[in-house]
Amino acid sequence: MKKRITLKDVARAANVHVSTASRALDPNTSHPIRDELALHIRRVSAELGYELNAEAYSLRTRRTRLVGVVIPDITDPVYPLILRGLENALLPRRFVSIVASLDGDMSREADVTALMRSRNVDGLILGSVEREDVVATKLLSQGVPLVTVGRRVENESVSSVTSDHVEGIRQALAHLRALGHRAIAHIAGPQKLSTGADRLKAFRGASAALGLGVSERAIVAADAYSIDEGRRCARELVARATGTTAVVCANDRLAVGAIAALRELGLECPRDLSVTGYNDMPMVDLLSPGLTTVHVPLVEIGSESARLLLDLLDRPEPEREARHVVLPASLVVRGSTRPPPP
Amino acid sequence: MKKRITLKDVARAANVHVSTASRALDPNTSHPIRDELALHIRRVSAELGYELNAEAYSLRTRRTRLVGVVIPDITDPVYPLILRGLENALLPRRFVSIVASLDGDMSREADVTALMRSRNVDGLILGSVEREDVVATKLLSQGVPLVTVGRRVENESVSSVTSDHVEGIRQALAHLRALGHRAIAHIAGPQKLSTGADRLKAFRGASAALGLGVSERAIVAADAYSIDEGRRCARELVARATGTTAVVCANDRLAVGAIAALRELGLECPRDLSVTGYNDMPMVDLLSPGLTTVHVPLVEIGSESARLLLDLLDRPEPEREARHVVLPASLVVRGSTRPPPP
Repeated sequence: MKKRITLKDVARAANVHVSTASRALDPNTSHPIRDELALHIRRVSAELGYELNAEAYSLRTRRTRLVGVVIPDITDPVYPLILRGLENALLPRRFVSIVASLDGDMSREADVTALMRSRNVDGLILGSVEREDVVATKLLSQGVPLVTVGRRVENESVSSVTSDHVEGIRQALAHLRALGHRAIAHIAGPQKLSTGADRLKAFRGASAALGLGVSERAIVAADAYSIDEGRRCARELVARATGTTAVVCANDRLAVGAIAALRELGLECPRDLSVTGYNDMPMVDLLSPGLTTVHVPLVEIGSESARLLLDLLDRPEPEREARHVVLPASLVVRGSTRPPPP
Repeated sequence: MKKRITLKDVARAANVHVSTASRALDPNTSHPIRDELALHIRRVSAELGYELNAEAYSLRTRRTRLVGVVIPDITDPVYPLILRGLENALLPRRFVSIVASLDGDMSREADVTALMRSRNVDGLILGSVEREDVVATKLLSQGVPLVTVGRRVENESVSSVTSDHVEGIRQALAHLRALGHRAIAHIAGPQKLSTGADRLKAFRGASAALGLGVSERAIVAADAYSIDEGRRCARELVARATGTTAVVCANDRLAVGAIAALRELGLECPRDLSVTGYNDMPMVDLLSPGLTTVHVPLVEIGSESARLLLDLLDRPEPEREARHVVLPASLVVRGSTRPPPP
């Protein structure tokens, strides 16, 4: 193997002190250096093929610039978009992420976060949390910088990035009401997750505000955000909430399952029942009917969560105040909603 | 912060020598230790809350147990499944992966792999390679352990895991021929990618073997594996290959785009034209019509590529022979194919 190019080589070739070269090459410390000089040093460094050695950097700064990311299920199409956003925000700072998917098995959360901590990650972004999350609570008490993405924990000292459930669900209900629907059911998400609880609360609130009565029989909560659970809940609704003409679902996978179950029962969406989703995940515009759903800026949710974490890392521990970012959500109308049958 | 539990603490509590404890806790070296003893030591270690410190391990072994993974586009639904397979195979060995998506921009490949090398990854798994890939060639010459996943490079000394294109495409063509189709077109993938070239070659070979003539006007190559490119290529085919009754597409996204374009042109799939895809990516069974496509074991492709890489890492450099694993592919018939119009 050829001789490794060192920082000293770069400094010599750029004709600057080694500490100047070091600062110029680290995006976290390059601000005090004149732009042209930093650019010159970076060019020399690139020409020589110098690569910042991460282990050496880590030993010097006690920073690994590694971020651990835990998501509930990588095959749920919302997470690739969130991960893209994360990466967009981490890469310019030369942070990289280690991503683990729990594949729907919450019991793996402790093991996976322990593995990440053994890699000395600088902080964690958790997309998998439940409202009462023992692992998040423990990590917080150990002083690990933490942000939740998409969901939040009840403990408000953990920073979070979510979408505006209240506005999203309100728009779905207002749209259905304007079409003439009066008996609107809800397939709620898992109630141990903030998204499930928040959207159910939003459904009750908006129903009341719009003068729609809510029958408890017209609310069914799913055990997971899966197509199968959407199917099961829709069957239950059809059996027990007769007269329903529209169903607001807590996410797109539930809506996709509900529409499939209706078809299996000889009912057609939107002819017999209108259905709405939440997230606007990829491909739901291509389904037949295209899904009317609440669009959520998934890429921005990802990048914002990374920015929140980087911001925590930039501050000394006593100044690490939790922040809660709520990004806008808005309805996209497609083919799965229309006026109720006469 | 509480005192860190050390390996010494674990060894003392388990009543074994520190070197035995070390070996028992590292999945790469635990084989020579009796199973019950290794299990006992692991239990004691878990009770004490001992975490193998990755930096210390890395300094001792010159191994980081980090694997770099580069994929072309994380929002392509095949990659989450491949990543799930990768993770399934890496986690039991306590390897973790750093994943980067190029988001369709090949010019980022060099930068991303340099970033990963600066993290001292033990090896790389590349899903983004072109047939002639300068970055892969350079990494190989530098002795970096390398496996390509889903695609391969022309240079046979780079290990690869792919699916059986020849058999997959043959089954699609045989199915269409059995339905009565004689004028079958092909929307090929990008020809700079092995999947695009291999499937086009398979299409020509199977057409000849089945006694189907291939008109060059009935072959259009996409510039990318995207829905938009599928749309563009289908429009081109309709304009220039009149009489075509079926289209074999080189992947599912191209097929989804083709079906959408046909609809926009007033043609219905499968009534006017049958369409097949490749990959059997999530949700294509839910489209209307459901997509007839070649099912590929995506999770296994991911786990096999990780196993190949771990196997390379387990050998001393002179014994690192390249291997090429081809996993089976088989047709799944759904609603997008039927006999040609009379």
